[in-house]
Amino acid sequence: RSINHRVDSRSLRLYRWYYSIFWQWTLVAVIGVILGLAFVEKPSSLSLSSDPHRRLRPWEPPCGATEGVEMVGLLLFALDLAVKGYLIGWEEFRKNKWLVAYVVVVSGSVIDLLLSVSMMCDESLRVRRVFRPFFLLQNSSLMKKTLKSIRRTLPEIASVILLLALHVCFFTMFGMLLFAKREKPEENGEWETYFRNLTVSLSSLLVLLTTANNPDVMIPAYTLNRLYSIFFVLFSVVGTYLMMNLITAIIYNQFRGYLLKSIQSSIMRRRLGIRAAFAVLCCRDRIQVQDQDQVRVQDQEKDQVQDQVQVKQHHVYEACKVTEGYVEGQAFLKLFEELEKDRIKEHPPMPEYSSRFMQTLQFLMSHYCFTMVGNVMAVANIICICCRKHTDHLLSERGSSSCLSPKAINVFFVTFYVVEMLLKMLALGFRRYLSYRSDVFDGFLTLSLLVGARSFLLVLQRRIRFCSIYTFCQKDFFNLREMMRLANMLIVFRFLRIIPNIKLMALVASTLMDLVKNLRAFAGILLVVYYVFAILGIWLFHGVIKVPANMRWVSTSSSLRFTENSRWDCGSYENLGYWPNNFDDFAASLVLLYNVMVVNNWQVFLEAYAKYTTEWSKVYFVSWWLISSVMWVNMFVALILENFTYKWDRSQGCSVTDVERIRYESS
Amino acid sequence: RSINHRVDSRSLRLYRWYYSIFWQWTLVAVIGVILGLAFVEKPSSLSLSSDPHRRLRPWEPPCGATEGVEMVGLLLFALDLAVKGYLIGWEEFRKNKWLVAYVVVVSGSVIDLLLSVSMMCDESLRVRRVFRPFFLLQNSSLMKKTLKSIRRTLPEIASVILLLALHVCFFTMFGMLLFAKREKPEENGEWETYFRNLTVSLSSLLVLLTTANNPDVMIPAYTLNRLYSIFFVLFSVVGTYLMMNLITAIIYNQFRGYLLKSIQSSIMRRRLGIRAAFAVLCCRDRIQVQDQDQVRVQDQEKDQVQDQVQVKQHHVYEACKVTEGYVEGQAFLKLFEELEKDRIKEHPPMPEYSSRFMQTLQFLMSHYCFTMVGNVMAVANIICICCRKHTDHLLSERGSSSCLSPKAINVFFVTFYVVEMLLKMLALGFRRYLSYRSDVFDGFLTLSLLVGARSFLLVLQRRIRFCSIYTFCQKDFFNLREMMRLANMLIVFRFLRIIPNIKLMALVASTLMDLVKNLRAFAGILLVVYYVFAILGIWLFHGVIKVPANMRWVSTSSSLRFTENSRWDCGSYENLGYWPNNFDDFAASLVLLYNVMVVNNWQVFLEAYAKYTTEWSKVYFVSWWLISSVMWVNMFVALILENFTYKWDRSQGCSVTDVERIRYESS
Repeated sequence: RSINHRVDSRSLRLYRWYYSIFWQWTLVAVIGVILGLAFVEKPSSLSLSSDPHRRLRPWEPPCGATEGVEMVGLLLFALDLAVKGYLIGWEEFRKNKWLVAYVVVVSGSVIDLLLSVSMMCDESLRVRRVFRPFFLLQNSSLMKKTLKSIRRTLPEIASVILLLALHVCFFTMFGMLLFAKREKPEENGEWETYFRNLTVSLSSLLVLLTTANNPDVMIPAYTLNRLYSIFFVLFSVVGTYLMMNLITAIIYNQFRGYLLKSIQSSIMRRRLGIRAAFAVLCCRDRIQVQDQDQVRVQDQEKDQVQDQVQVKQHHVYEACKVTEGYVEGQAFLKLFEELEKDRIKEHPPMPEYSSRFMQTLQFLMSHYCFTMVGNVMAVANIICICCRKHTDHLLSERGSSSCLSPKAINVFFVTFYVVEMLLKMLALGFRRYLSYRSDVFDGFLTLSLLVGARSFLLVLQRRIRFCSIYTFCQKDFFNLREMMRLANMLIVFRFLRIIPNIKLMALVASTLMDLVKNLRAFAGILLVVYYVFAILGIWLFHGVIKVPANMRWVSTSSSLRFTENSRWDCGSYENLGYWPNNFDDFAASLVLLYNVMVVNNWQVFLEAYAKYTTEWSKVYFVSWWLISSVMWVNMFVALILENFTYKWDRSQGCSVTDVERIRYESS
Repeated sequence: RSINHRVDSRSLRLYRWYYSIFWQWTLVAVIGVILGLAFVEKPSSLSLSSDPHRRLRPWEPPCGATEGVEMVGLLLFALDLAVKGYLIGWEEFRKNKWLVAYVVVVSGSVIDLLLSVSMMCDESLRVRRVFRPFFLLQNSSLMKKTLKSIRRTLPEIASVILLLALHVCFFTMFGMLLFAKREKPEENGEWETYFRNLTVSLSSLLVLLTTANNPDVMIPAYTLNRLYSIFFVLFSVVGTYLMMNLITAIIYNQFRGYLLKSIQSSIMRRRLGIRAAFAVLCCRDRIQVQDQDQVRVQDQEKDQVQDQVQVKQHHVYEACKVTEGYVEGQAFLKLFEELEKDRIKEHPPMPEYSSRFMQTLQFLMSHYCFTMVGNVMAVANIICICCRKHTDHLLSERGSSSCLSPKAINVFFVTFYVVEMLLKMLALGFRRYLSYRSDVFDGFLTLSLLVGARSFLLVLQRRIRFCSIYTFCQKDFFNLREMMRLANMLIVFRFLRIIPNIKLMALVASTLMDLVKNLRAFAGILLVVYYVFAILGIWLFHGVIKVPANMRWVSTSSSLRFTENSRWDCGSYENLGYWPNNFDDFAASLVLLYNVMVVNNWQVFLEAYAKYTTEWSKVYFVSWWLISSVMWVNMFVALILENFTYKWDRSQGCSVTDVERIRYESS
């Protein structure tokens, strides 16, 4: 954090309280609640389905409920702002654009809120909603930094997008000339469907750029003459493969070294902080001041470092005494490394048994083979379930319900898992057992399975008793199935334990895990963008898609749907049954935006909303596509590349300690 | 090239002949012809359309024609092999796996060819076709090197693909349990369509991994309960976004520095070669041997370098004399740089005019503004065409044919272009004009436009004369339109000239251009893969898709197609009219494979071929998807990343000479 803040004793206490874990988490929780309000507010997302055919009138909070919660949240933000402003002083406050924007957004939101309460929650447009994600952005320095580096790439990306636009325009012109209206009506397929006029041609080629209408767009022309395919292949190769990937390259080029630099700078800052603390410590030491001051200076460092530093305080203190207030750079670095190393926690030791038998058992349990046997059993179990599921409906159709064989298998496997767990606990000792996360995960699943199997057996016992009554058996069978379904899901989860045991896979999986950690800033920005676009979407397209009056079906069985659907064109929004993808509430909007981000079939939404509203709705979808799919997905790819190459370089050139640490972190 | 070859005088002459431009180009041409045979051979691709409804019986070469050509080609390959074998000697030959494979393939092909001739070209399976791309691979050392580095990445990619398979399996299991058969039939939509049994579930999730059935696969479940969407979103995010991009990262990590290293090593080899030549030169110089030897040693270097070296020979020779056979390393490097620099050719000088008027003209023509005016005119022309095309069908519907206004505009623009071209030629001088590639391109298009406009005017004159006869006007209008269509296409092409004038765009465009140069090895490998898969596809699926007897329509107008199509399911192969995408001939197979590579809607092909043949056909398509879309496209992305970052680093840290060279190369 910035060093610019008041340093008098009262302010420092306030500063300490402000950056305490409690207040920071309170802020995060408040932001979460404020953002989460979108799900509850009118239009509420609390219905089971978002399909207008099936949706009942969802529960909606009374006027004033969400507004009250929001008011409390905004007041807390105002408090936060006041404290921050007081701490850094007016001069700094004015320079910081983020804080100024914070003031504007909070005050604007309060005014908007008061307005909407005075209108009895009946206003059509709630502007403050769009600005809510700002609180999230404002609160995370990482996200602000990421935004900054995104802003740096923008000019280059703009040039590629310009080139892309030129490419699309060029091919549109060329395509319109190539597929102009012909004399023979049967040769007009391409013109009629995809190149009728400028806007149609542009949007079909824009969609082709995302490959979402790939074979379809060329079919009418390609049916006539196979050479026409060259036009489309050329367009896709240059546009999709060359230029789109060039955007990836540009973004990656900007983010190259981003991770390394940020880690370097964070370590540098930490070192500097500790060095400063150390200097203060030494000075104070000579003139015999109380410890209070030390702690105060320490508070300026990151909170997470603080605890460690305090643990190691006596080391520094000792070193200080020995060298009489003077420590060489080398020694300081050594001390620092000592401080770093301490972060590797060790597993609690195994209990030491005196009996010969227990020692052998302990040896066997810790052996690699034992883990392998466990894995083989998990795989075998999965294969059993697999085979059973595959033949399940065949069997049930034939009437032979095969009640007992799956049960026997299940009981066998559950017994094995329980025995394995107990043996492991015995051998490793309970505390060491708990220190391995994978073992805890296993144990939890095994216990759940055991509970499941017990009630399963109970049901089964009842069943065998009454098995002569066929009807009961039939009715109970479903309960049994539901239970087995749950048990099977648990077993499938248990199957995941084999991943860390395969070496190559462990590397890849740990990369993925690391990625998720580094992803927070990106995920936050994605959240912000999703939120803003969803709110805009609700505002623009709320309730636009009307269900035909005679189509209020309740059943979704395919035969009924088929007859209903046949009156729509193939591949249209209505025919594909995309009804639940709409902007009628917040949750549905999120799913729709996700579907557009994935890009496949997005032209269906484009066309549907152009039909129900105006052609200008395409602007909304295209800009969402540009931001989410072009920008964000490419940023994501860049991040993965960066993360992987960083990890790779590190694993190639790192010392033994590092390898140890990596191994520990991935276990 | 390898240094292992015979060095006696006769062999060296043979060696020199073998690596002459003539023989190497002959080999390339022969390989091209042999590969091109696939288009002509039975099943021949020489029909206008590949749609089985419209396809007439194509021309097929008589038995023996293609076989004869192939025989000649194979004999040439045998000759090539013999020369190569002789040159490098038996010991080396045996060690070289590529050459041994070459022998096997050539002899195998000859045997297969003889067999097929003896069977009167009636054999069902021509094995030799599959091995033809081997000749291409064998002939390019770059491709062999690329193959090697691909082979190095395979283990890591395999681990990710394993993880991916695990991911798909896990979600398949989970999905089958989640969307099991329910009691109520209307809740069975998801189970019925996508999770009926193991194979169906697996393939729907595999397709979802490529996002090709994205919103569709979740619709039945999502309609029931919006929480089901989490399952699909989670699957896509982990599978498509995380793991697929991890493959990109792994491949990129392998190819990182590939370009730099290959350029470094090629320069090193060149320097070494010249150094060796130089050493020989100096030694020979002392004992007075004729020049013959120098030339012979020089031949061992790359042919392209050779010419330069001979030009600069006297420099080296001089230096040699001065230092009496001893040159310091520094001086040698300086000489070498001199040698390098010479590659930048200069444009021929402008002619010098004595008259004041001509000098002013020359100044004006070379000025930046003049180019800008030209560009503005090109853009204006494009906008004119654009507007015209947009309102074209509206006008023609209203009956007001607006014959004259487009003509006037066209004549105006053509006149401007011609004047511009002549002025430029005058100012720059004819030779300098020709030395700019962009100007030559412009001039060519202008001339074509002029020719077009002349015939256009001729037609128009005739027309004005007979304009009272309305019917003629109507009939002629189409000729006019065709002509204008052509002219407009040329103008659109001319529009491309503005690209090098926009700075940012020029950088991006030059990156793209450079990329294409570096792409040859990758394109070659892609060609090989396409070829092999197309031949395999023809062999496996030739004529599998049968057109229903009552559906031999000729017209493709949409109304007729609609009635015909309504009897197929929406979104099926037949309904979408994907008929021309089949394996009935080589060209059609290539297009089909391309469409699968682009991935969108590939499940349609998967399902159609599974329906017409067996479920096992999916193996073919999935393996093609893995090789083309997963492996090759990712490799392509890696190459683009590599190329861009290389170019970026170079442009950041290069000297003035380099900038000069880059500017020259991009002009």
